[in-house]
Amino acid sequence: MIEVEAQISIKRNGVTFLNPVKIALLKEIVVSGSLSAAAKKVGISYQHAWTMISEVNLNAPQPLVIKQRGGKNGGGAEISEYGLRIMNEYQLINETVVRTISQINVEINL
Amino acid sequence: MIEVEAQISIKRNGVTFLNPVKIALLKEIVVSGSLSAAAKKVGISYQHAWTMISEVNLNAPQPLVIKQRGGKNGGGAEISEYGLRIMNEYQLINETVVRTISQINVEINL
Repeated sequence: MIEVEAQISIKRNGVTFLNPVKIALLKEIVVSGSLSAAAKKVGISYQHAWTMISEVNLNAPQPLVIKQRGGKNGGGAEISEYGLRIMNEYQLINETVVRTISQINVEINL
Repeated sequence: MIEVEAQISIKRNGVTFLNPVKIALLKEIVVSGSLSAAAKKVGISYQHAWTMISEVNLNAPQPLVIKQRGGKNGGGAEISEYGLRIMNEYQLINETVVRTISQINVEINL
């Protein structure tokens, strides 16, 4: 069985702003309210997650994630309203590309 | 400036068959007729390239690359007719997705 898949990245001024790993992190932060829990769920280190989220925030006109470093649970994290809107936009873009790819999957002949 | 990009992968029976790195390798093999030259151009080790091409061949009903290991120039490599057809199919899929994404890039509002 043949399947076509696409990994969507969004760049801002040439720098990767959002990609599948970052989106996975954001989604897990919504669920857990914790960056360390989200990092664990996605399978990356806390430090790596921290760097990624810092990059996402730095690349945006306003922060997507409000975070508190340290503390008993490795720091709480919350998605801003702006962040939720961006996640929704990414989801819509993703769905459009997935629809195109589903069409390709029907026609494919490798 | 916001840009959406997609990395296309094609899976066969759940296993990644083609992705951007493998396609880049195949293209460089067409140009140079050499796996070691292609690996160098793509920026991966000869061993890594060898493993990737072996996987591609193993996952296909017939080989995409005909290779001779070793020799003075690290082994010659040639793309089969079947390989050229598959590369062309990948290109067409890629163009379809790129067209969709260009449309998204016009409408995007992040």
